Amino acid sequence: MPGQSQPDNKTLQDIANRLRIYSVQSTNACKSGHPTSCSSMAEIMSVLFFHTMRYKVSAPRDPSSDRFVLSKGHAAPILYAAWAEAGLFPISDLQNLRKFDSDLEGHPTPRLNFVDVGTGSLGQGLSIAAGMAFVGKKYDKASYRVYCLIGDGESAEGSIWEAINFSSYYKLDNLCLIIDVNRLGQSEPAPLAHQLDVYQKRLEAFGWNAIIVDGHSIEELVKGFHVAATTKDKPTALVAKTFKGKNFPNIEDLENWHGKPLGDKADAVVQHLKTLIKNQGPLSIHPQKPLKDDAPQVNISNIKLSSPPNYKLGESIATRQAYGNAIAKVAENNPRVIALDGDMKNSTFSEKIKKVDPNRFVECFIAEQNLVGVAIGAACRDRTVAFVSTFATFLTRAFDQIRMGAISQTNVNFVGSHCGISIGEDGPSQMGLEDLALFRAVPGSTIFYPADAVSVERAVEIAANTKGICFIRTNRPPTNVIYANDQVFEIGKGHILKKSNNDKVLVIGAGVTLQEALIAANDLAKNGVNVRVFDPFTIKPIDKDAIIKHGREVGGRIITVEDHYSEGGIGDAVLSAVAEERDFVVKKLAVTEVPRSGPTAVLLDTYGISSKHVVKAVQEILKL
Amino acid sequence: MPGQSQPDNKTLQDIANRLRIYSVQSTNACKSGHPTSCSSMAEIMSVLFFHTMRYKVSAPRDPSSDRFVLSKGHAAPILYAAWAEAGLFPISDLQNLRKFDSDLEGHPTPRLNFVDVGTGSLGQGLSIAAGMAFVGKKYDKASYRVYCLIGDGESAEGSIWEAINFSSYYKLDNLCLIIDVNRLGQSEPAPLAHQLDVYQKRLEAFGWNAIIVDGHSIEELVKGFHVAATTKDKPTALVAKTFKGKNFPNIEDLENWHGKPLGDKADAVVQHLKTLIKNQGPLSIHPQKPLKDDAPQVNISNIKLSSPPNYKLGESIATRQAYGNAIAKVAENNPRVIALDGDMKNSTFSEKIKKVDPNRFVECFIAEQNLVGVAIGAACRDRTVAFVSTFATFLTRAFDQIRMGAISQTNVNFVGSHCGISIGEDGPSQMGLEDLALFRAVPGSTIFYPADAVSVERAVEIAANTKGICFIRTNRPPTNVIYANDQVFEIGKGHILKKSNNDKVLVIGAGVTLQEALIAANDLAKNGVNVRVFDPFTIKPIDKDAIIKHGREVGGRIITVEDHYSEGGIGDAVLSAVAEERDFVVKKLAVTEVPRSGPTAVLLDTYGISSKHVVKAVQEILKL
Repeated sequence: MPGQSQPDNKTLQDIANRLRIYSVQSTNACKSGHPTSCSSMAEIMSVLFFHTMRYKVSAPRDPSSDRFVLSKGHAAPILYAAWAEAGLFPISDLQNLRKFDSDLEGHPTPRLNFVDVGTGSLGQGLSIAAGMAFVGKKYDKASYRVYCLIGDGESAEGSIWEAINFSSYYKLDNLCLIIDVNRLGQSEPAPLAHQLDVYQKRLEAFGWNAIIVDGHSIEELVKGFHVAATTKDKPTALVAKTFKGKNFPNIEDLENWHGKPLGDKADAVVQHLKTLIKNQGPLSIHPQKPLKDDAPQVNISNIKLSSPPNYKLGESIATRQAYGNAIAKVAENNPRVIALDGDMKNSTFSEKIKKVDPNRFVECFIAEQNLVGVAIGAACRDRTVAFVSTFATFLTRAFDQIRMGAISQTNVNFVGSHCGISIGEDGPSQMGLEDLALFRAVPGSTIFYPADAVSVERAVEIAANTKGICFIRTNRPPTNVIYANDQVFEIGKGHILKKSNNDKVLVIGAGVTLQEALIAANDLAKNGVNVRVFDPFTIKPIDKDAIIKHGREVGGRIITVEDHYSEGGIGDAVLSAVAEERDFVVKKLAVTEVPRSGPTAVLLDTYGISSKHVVKAVQEILKL
Repeated sequence: MPGQSQPDNKTLQDIANRLRIYSVQSTNACKSGHPTSCSSMAEIMSVLFFHTMRYKVSAPRDPSSDRFVLSKGHAAPILYAAWAEAGLFPISDLQNLRKFDSDLEGHPTPRLNFVDVGTGSLGQGLSIAAGMAFVGKKYDKASYRVYCLIGDGESAEGSIWEAINFSSYYKLDNLCLIIDVNRLGQSEPAPLAHQLDVYQKRLEAFGWNAIIVDGHSIEELVKGFHVAATTKDKPTALVAKTFKGKNFPNIEDLENWHGKPLGDKADAVVQHLKTLIKNQGPLSIHPQKPLKDDAPQVNISNIKLSSPPNYKLGESIATRQAYGNAIAKVAENNPRVIALDGDMKNSTFSEKIKKVDPNRFVECFIAEQNLVGVAIGAACRDRTVAFVSTFATFLTRAFDQIRMGAISQTNVNFVGSHCGISIGEDGPSQMGLEDLALFRAVPGSTIFYPADAVSVERAVEIAANTKGICFIRTNRPPTNVIYANDQVFEIGKGHILKKSNNDKVLVIGAGVTLQEALIAANDLAKNGVNVRVFDPFTIKPIDKDAIIKHGREVGGRIITVEDHYSEGGIGDAVLSAVAEERDFVVKKLAVTEVPRSGPTAVLLDTYGISSKHVVKAVQEILKL
């Protein structure tokens, strides 16, 4: 089990107390942070970082190294302390914790080269770790292991149990969870307090190997991690009994110390901790390197469709169906393209990737938070190009994961099908009417809203190569193919679909409403009113230059029509584009109330986004 | 156990098959829907509605009646069939399923008087049922029971396990869960298939009484529900082994029949079902009425602060702290005001309600989806006025529940603290920067963004009396009291805080940025540039009339400054207000990238929303 160069238990215990000292000192320096939450996990960190884990301090993102995800991100100071102690940067840097010009932020983010994903919204780390472990086992087929530490309070998050379920289902024996059961939440004790056996029973019922350990015993931790590493076909959890503020006299295991630096008590605590350390001198401990450099080199650049779009102009095909064609084509072109879904693969058409390679489809079942977390884990460090699909509205279930994904600098691509009222009879619970608002509010995101099958395929191809979060919105009902197969698409570049020399209004729609706009334009033309019709292709960034240019040419009159609630979608995006232009008026057509079940055409008409309403809006805006 | 008027098992079995027939016929009539998902639960519905549950068919919202939540909302046809069979409306109405002019929608909504909450986004029903059961036990102290049926597929949703955890923690023995384990999900078998014992173990590990039953055996179901009703101090789950499409020959237990009407197979299936029915005549079965009408009358109208705001102008106090004062005051005035939190009560100050009445605080621990679901359940049928608080950004975790809350016509009030970068050192994971976008995209919502302590108290008072979802955004750092204690506030009415006769620009801010705007206005005034400063009070609806009026008076120049991402927040709301006005220009100041940890003042400055940036924007907009 242990290699020759590994430190003995006494040394590991000394390191634990050193990490405590650093955590107390750094949080005291910035007068904020969570020293007591660090202290409960000091021995766990010491054993993991200086005995169990195999990694290269000099190359924290090395693909063959073991991974560590600190799900309880508020314990960041001890994570930073461990890497400093391991030699990545000077101990003295820890004093810059939470300063504006330091990357040692209040919660970990990948601005630090030793952090793969941002944490700090509780309950998300295990899904991400499971995604990493899935890639390690199924795609990399490498020997690195993934460790994830969560707090006991955060084990109340359902996303944790989604991840636990996923990990045992896929037999991720390269994944090890540590629950730091320190008994105390932020405002009162956690529900299970120190009932370690209850945690164990729950984990076992969910198919895990679960071991109760004294989280402050180096010996028990070393043994526990050895059992984890040698247990096959199921993941292992160490349920660690710990104390918040361990070894902080008059603070240990007491309430009302969450998230508080020790202030004037810090000196006494540090003095006490020093008395616990046997070897005061420099330790010159070197973490163990990976046994094998067996994770393959991966190239996810320049991903192309394996063949160009192949549709007929005017052909009627749902964009969700074209997504199925597209994901298969990019998967054919690059072995690292994967698709994840939440039991919707036959509705979103993500299942089409299975024809290329069944192993590149990851069924995450009905658990959208874990679905997104697993994708973020799978995509991090550029190991895969992950496409997540489900109904657009069910991505709201994972808004917090998506938000954190932006902090994690993830490149995951989201595909939301069944957008808007155009889905028809299933009713409002299944209609994506807030998904554009959601994804617009994600920093650095790119939002594709392709009008037809041709543009969907190009959107998928572009998304596969685009940094940051991408979202592709697809329709349930078929729409007509309006672009030639060789049409070129670019982020932030829209296309004029109808134009004359005396257009009076610019009409901007997308998906089904673009088709309604085209119908309206033809109807209006028959009555001598010419309008220009614009397909933005991407909603974020939106083609500001084109909108202003064409808007000016038509007298500053713009109508937006969208199958989305009126807040946060295309209308707001267009308004922002022309915000600083004088002499523009914008009329927004959108859904303004909770819709009902019914046939698509009836719904479009009832909720004000059919061609009839576009005609009426044109007549009205001409008066403004 | 059974009363005299209860039907015998054969009759209940007949009813089950009748419900199957109705489900087949109604879905066939509208050519969509989920007959096979109905069929697996036919005996469960029959026993619940015609044997076990006590309720008044004539008054479906009767407060003393047992409640039923169909979490797997796609099985709506059999829910409708059960109420028709019970006599609420004619059986023939079932043929209007999913038609636009019928309230018998694809998934249940409270447009129907026998539906308390909308379902159809899976995994949400149990939290809602738990909220109802909590109210029944702790506040109503009444004998009604709450039943919730979920599918096996949806038990993968973490929110289910949050609710399971909550319900056993609070010993909700008036709650009964039924898991319809029909083995098949939408696109493939559910992960546990028919491993009933695994469900049982998981439930038991989570503190529940769990009974495995044959879900097609009337006798076992009757017994199971009796055990549930007589088990004390813990909730009971019936883990029911069922078959999807039960009693549909050549369809039962087969894949690829999810969400499909039977089409040309329907007639044969109906004929077969008819052969199973012993008594073909009218059954004239009457469900049992409640044993006692023991749920109290409740009055939640006209809720007032128990005493007016009592602050000093210029006093510095965080709006989150004022929320604590306000929730205590409205709680003092009405015994049905409750506060729910996710282990943040000492940060959001919701804990202050405990001084009024400790029982009116509901600790939901770190499980925001369940937190929101419990609140929706607690607030439905006007049993309580529920205030949910946590960090604003963690409400993203429950966006799907909030979205469904609008469909449920809920009146839950949300309070999001720690909004924006002004929280400082904790960093981006804790900063609410998309909460306005989220709540603006909820139909019928009201969004309060109070500037100071006085306006927070009034916002809470107004929210308590306002239908639909309300959201109150509060700050971590203190802001100055700017309103007199007798200031009157109204939804959709803002206030001009600074004005002169030659203002050149209208500056709109809120919370911390309103204070920055006031500083900027004073700085500018010293240099001879007058600007008007506006506090919108509510962001939705926003005071469109005032913005247009004052905007016109200053030459159509508006600057918005907000501690939020630039999409979906105040800027977009203001742009929408002036969208149809010519001659307006709007400059949005907002956060445009993932921020860092740091001191509040440094962050406001770095990310472009400090007074300095307002001054600069004023200078720029004067050139437009």
